[in-house]
Amino acid sequence: MRSDIGDNVRTLFSPDSIAVFGSFKELVGLGWGLLKNLNDFGFKGRVYPVNPSYAEVMGLKVHPGIEEIQGQVDLAVIITPPPAVTSVVRQCAAKGVKAAVIVTENFAEADQEGARLQRELVEIRDRTGIRILGPNTVGVINARNGLITIPYLIGYDHIRQGGIAYCSQSGIAAAQCQPLQDRGYPISKMCDLGNKCDLDEVDMLEYFLADRETTVLSMHLEDVRHGREFVDAARRFTAAKPLIVFKPARTEAGARASASHTASLAGNDRIYDEALKQAGALRVDTWQEFWDVPKMFEMRPLSRGNRIGIVSHSGGAGVVAVDAAVRAGLEIAEFSPETISKLKDISPRLARNPVDLGPVLSPAADPFQIQEQVLRAVLSDPNLDCAFIVIYVGVLAPIQLVAEVFERAMKDISKPVAIWVYGTRLSLLAEMSRELDSRCLPTYTDTETALKALATQARYSRYMGQRAVSGLKREKT
Amino acid sequence: MRSDIGDNVRTLFSPDSIAVFGSFKELVGLGWGLLKNLNDFGFKGRVYPVNPSYAEVMGLKVHPGIEEIQGQVDLAVIITPPPAVTSVVRQCAAKGVKAAVIVTENFAEADQEGARLQRELVEIRDRTGIRILGPNTVGVINARNGLITIPYLIGYDHIRQGGIAYCSQSGIAAAQCQPLQDRGYPISKMCDLGNKCDLDEVDMLEYFLADRETTVLSMHLEDVRHGREFVDAARRFTAAKPLIVFKPARTEAGARASASHTASLAGNDRIYDEALKQAGALRVDTWQEFWDVPKMFEMRPLSRGNRIGIVSHSGGAGVVAVDAAVRAGLEIAEFSPETISKLKDISPRLARNPVDLGPVLSPAADPFQIQEQVLRAVLSDPNLDCAFIVIYVGVLAPIQLVAEVFERAMKDISKPVAIWVYGTRLSLLAEMSRELDSRCLPTYTDTETALKALATQARYSRYMGQRAVSGLKREKT
Repeated sequence: MRSDIGDNVRTLFSPDSIAVFGSFKELVGLGWGLLKNLNDFGFKGRVYPVNPSYAEVMGLKVHPGIEEIQGQVDLAVIITPPPAVTSVVRQCAAKGVKAAVIVTENFAEADQEGARLQRELVEIRDRTGIRILGPNTVGVINARNGLITIPYLIGYDHIRQGGIAYCSQSGIAAAQCQPLQDRGYPISKMCDLGNKCDLDEVDMLEYFLADRETTVLSMHLEDVRHGREFVDAARRFTAAKPLIVFKPARTEAGARASASHTASLAGNDRIYDEALKQAGALRVDTWQEFWDVPKMFEMRPLSRGNRIGIVSHSGGAGVVAVDAAVRAGLEIAEFSPETISKLKDISPRLARNPVDLGPVLSPAADPFQIQEQVLRAVLSDPNLDCAFIVIYVGVLAPIQLVAEVFERAMKDISKPVAIWVYGTRLSLLAEMSRELDSRCLPTYTDTETALKALATQARYSRYMGQRAVSGLKREKT
Repeated sequence: MRSDIGDNVRTLFSPDSIAVFGSFKELVGLGWGLLKNLNDFGFKGRVYPVNPSYAEVMGLKVHPGIEEIQGQVDLAVIITPPPAVTSVVRQCAAKGVKAAVIVTENFAEADQEGARLQRELVEIRDRTGIRILGPNTVGVINARNGLITIPYLIGYDHIRQGGIAYCSQSGIAAAQCQPLQDRGYPISKMCDLGNKCDLDEVDMLEYFLADRETTVLSMHLEDVRHGREFVDAARRFTAAKPLIVFKPARTEAGARASASHTASLAGNDRIYDEALKQAGALRVDTWQEFWDVPKMFEMRPLSRGNRIGIVSHSGGAGVVAVDAAVRAGLEIAEFSPETISKLKDISPRLARNPVDLGPVLSPAADPFQIQEQVLRAVLSDPNLDCAFIVIYVGVLAPIQLVAEVFERAMKDISKPVAIWVYGTRLSLLAEMSRELDSRCLPTYTDTETALKALATQARYSRYMGQRAVSGLKREKT
């Protein structure tokens, strides 16, 4: 294990005070953009802009240098040109700053001179103990305290608080590139690893394992530099919390592209695959899965198996879901005689898995009541570990009411469910999804990702079971 | 070949006059809903509501029976209760109606009595020559003449006119269930096959092959009843136009689910797969592909090969795209020395495939100009057959301007391109996508579907090449 991650890394996500180094030119300066984001997201700590060319910005005094700041500075965010970065980091270390986020680009990923400057950063860290995230990163977000170190305009000012930590090795998986507010992901923290000159995925595994606000970690990795350490840390992590890993560059061509993109060796994919399996990590294959699979863990209790029930407003969608479920590794549940009998009482046509609600709902006097009865009958079946539900949202659908029907139907049902909403207006689909997600009923924009989320959850549940058994065996011997 | 599909099937999509049988109770009657849709979509033909219980609806005289209508009726849309359907169809045939859409459910898909009624429909067709679509269908749409036979509220009143025909065997793939206006698919016609008591996929292949407004056909099939005929018709079709087929029930469990859903035999998937290959059909695997792959054919010229160039605002997205491209069967292009030199002139960091625009655009004085130069350099490379482009849409992005930059960059470039747009607000992504799609620059909501669309296009191009060669060989022998 690495030396205790200690206060310095915790400070990265929970600083009481931040110094910001950059340009504060209104609207265009990246330092200005960062202050605006901190303000919009409601960061409560002290913020010290530092730049000799400005006196005041957004009502804050700008300090000519960090030494002029009275009192403690916990975290520095550095967006100066590359040659200035090393001296700023030195000054920060001298002032007792615990951690620095270096947003500045053009280090090892760019050229030889950049690589030299990056080695200098490592030397400063070795000498002073200051921890560095980056360079070439947009840094971190903490949804609880409003901390954000991104200097680009975000387009929203709020992230739903929850237990998902997202950690990536590319800016595309950071908040300035993703509709996090529209999607309503319940997030604890986010971190962009950048060039990983100091802090890397292993530190983040340690940190998020200890972090009480994080229940599940989704990691995007282009490379892993310390394989053994990573597997050990991941294995410790997965004993307590699920770890989702999106490691692209699976093809040879992908590995070459990754190498030239991050100046890192993507390595043989089979070795990664094996290592991730050993560590109990849950590998996913698309950006969509990287974003959408974790909420299944955050919103629903762990399943006890992989037998799935499918309830759909459309028979055609049910057939497609069966295919996707089987491909994802799930098993189509056989309903218990009790469930069959409950369903038959409503309509003989409902008594099979997948349940096709379509022909029964449209002529019904109270379709909501039938829907609730069917869902409860299916979800409480002991032969079933999880469920996929397909809902039609019509133009006149009473969205609140539908969400409440689902909430009631799921009451006291401690099984994972995934919901796919379809209909004729994107705006209504988004609204229905938000309502369901906010009730811990996870929605998905396509069948395949929904089933993958359920299957991934079942995989983790099985892994935990096996681990418990092998732990018991070890104890006995 | 079946007997010439003739006027009766053409009438299904292009009637001058329609009789509507159903309830015209305001807001709730399905006949009323149908009239409203015809009105909203601007159908120009004559519409005759028929029902003895009403005198007038939406300003139209309601006829007590079809025999009371003066003049010719081309098409009947029937939404009466099941027992009344057969006598209505008989009256229609007597009146000389050429085709009937039977929306009514509860025929062979429901029970024995329904199956008996359905057999009666077939007898009437045999005796009278009236052609029947359904029962258990929402029928057809013709985007050009405003014809729509769906009796449910749609939530929009306009479909973009274009060359894609969608034909499905499930209501979920019809207009009352899909955001067709929001997505802006350029559509010629749509058809829901329903129970296929008469007209089926073979008739539709014949019809859409002859239909000049249709350039590409996307078919969702749960079963094929006349395998040999289907393969022959599909083979004739694919000699002239691309045929995309989404045939789910690939797994055994899926086949069982399909059998109970449509009362049809889904059959062994390997046989289907082989038959579709023989016919030159392009099989896809998800709803998303069923909807989004065809527009690549409609909007872009056919590629001459499968070598792809990738240009991305994000290096991380580029790496993922390489993986997805290789998996889909594409080959990462080697840029020509001329392209390499053009790119190096802009920035040495750009001179590789995938091109990572990120580090070059953000500090640039005129990022749009650079983007245009890079795109033109890459797209005009003779070593490259198609391209995948990833665009970031920021909060302040001048959407019109960006779309124009792309339009200029693509001018005179006759290669397929697929675009993936990412950013922080779903509304902006939708707006940007609409702007690009309307310029025949097809956008996709995920990397995998975009690459699948390009690969499917390359597959069809290869197929056409092979067919031409074997045609020549046959001529010689």
